[in-house]
Amino acid sequence: MSGKLYALSTGPGAADLITVRGARILGKLDVLYAPAGRKGGDSLALSIVREYLGEQTEVRCCHFPMSADSAEKEAVWDEVAAALEAEVQAGKQVGFITLGDAMLFSTWVFLLQRLQYPQNLEIVPGVTSFAAIAARAQTPLAMEQQSLAVVSCTAPESDIRQALAQHDSLVLMKVYGRFARVKALLAEAGLLDHALMMAEATLPGEQCWRQLSEVSDDQPLPYFSTILVNKQWKQA
Amino acid sequence: MSGKLYALSTGPGAADLITVRGARILGKLDVLYAPAGRKGGDSLALSIVREYLGEQTEVRCCHFPMSADSAEKEAVWDEVAAALEAEVQAGKQVGFITLGDAMLFSTWVFLLQRLQYPQNLEIVPGVTSFAAIAARAQTPLAMEQQSLAVVSCTAPESDIRQALAQHDSLVLMKVYGRFARVKALLAEAGLLDHALMMAEATLPGEQCWRQLSEVSDDQPLPYFSTILVNKQWKQA
Repeated sequence: MSGKLYALSTGPGAADLITVRGARILGKLDVLYAPAGRKGGDSLALSIVREYLGEQTEVRCCHFPMSADSAEKEAVWDEVAAALEAEVQAGKQVGFITLGDAMLFSTWVFLLQRLQYPQNLEIVPGVTSFAAIAARAQTPLAMEQQSLAVVSCTAPESDIRQALAQHDSLVLMKVYGRFARVKALLAEAGLLDHALMMAEATLPGEQCWRQLSEVSDDQPLPYFSTILVNKQWKQA
Repeated sequence: MSGKLYALSTGPGAADLITVRGARILGKLDVLYAPAGRKGGDSLALSIVREYLGEQTEVRCCHFPMSADSAEKEAVWDEVAAALEAEVQAGKQVGFITLGDAMLFSTWVFLLQRLQYPQNLEIVPGVTSFAAIAARAQTPLAMEQQSLAVVSCTAPESDIRQALAQHDSLVLMKVYGRFARVKALLAEAGLLDHALMMAEATLPGEQCWRQLSEVSDDQPLPYFSTILVNKQWKQA
């Protein structure tokens, strides 16, 4: 059997929100690469998929530095991409897992850019965090002719303001550490009653805030906190 | 056992791109409601999930008219929502399947708005068509601080033009019947080389066009055709 690389999306967090295809592929892998937040630390992605792994699967945790030093990051991406391809060349079934969907805000894309043999690759899509948030909060993302923008709160304030003005609904990712600023932008746009915030959707620690006007600016938030805005859907 | 309603996202088309949770719930349903495009016609959503259904599951196809007559549409939504709740009140495990993700451009939301007892409801999210397209085309949706807009080609031309100018990447849904117009907007924005079009992603009839400048304005397209634009990723 010739080697193959699978980029596997875990989905938003609950183990059973991975796809059937993803679960089946996990069961037949020779090697699984799992990204870890800290060196030697646990991998959330790995904890999601562990129940589907075959007994034969070797797990290798890899750490991607968060540093601003892009040379350091690029060296790690080069190294992991080369390691993945070496395993495939050796005839192995190799997986790389990513949280949410592999093609949206994922480190995986930096590895994809570095692959020499993308024909031995299958990317398995997954449920995005915002689809999970919409489902859990029973609040739609967009309907009919409406438009949806997915914006990172690390973007310039003017971009966020413009997106809030122009789209019917919005997903504001990476709220962590920026809640007060984003709340002020929502208030300025008159959208606080149309917004909700969710953290760790579908995981045991899931939290949901529907009255953002009453949430304190210094409310402690988990790392995975996202705001969903729908102008046609009132929360408060 | 008390009754419960499940809104089940099928994912983009391939049967194994449903979630593990969705597949498990399908196996224990008493009744499944499946939307059909035409009266008495087949249901694509049903064909996707059929292999997961339990033997005891009764299937009821329901037809949602595409007519512009909103009174007619609203009467059908009222009727189906009432039928779903009557089954739940009778203690049944009831499913309603929707293509892609239930909370994005789905008829399901019109039913959700009409439910009297949303506490007996679980919405199971799914893989969106655009996540599947990005995976199949090996083209990312968005990275780091980039923003993504999901826009329907039925929107006013000025809105599409503005979104093309402002976002790093875009998903243009509902291209069917509007390709020439959308191609002209992409050409005007200098984005033809950064766009690809995919039809029926992950289904047997999947097609992908990467050089949109060479696709004829009157190219016949399947109903499910979508354009993906990524300004940082060249296709042609």
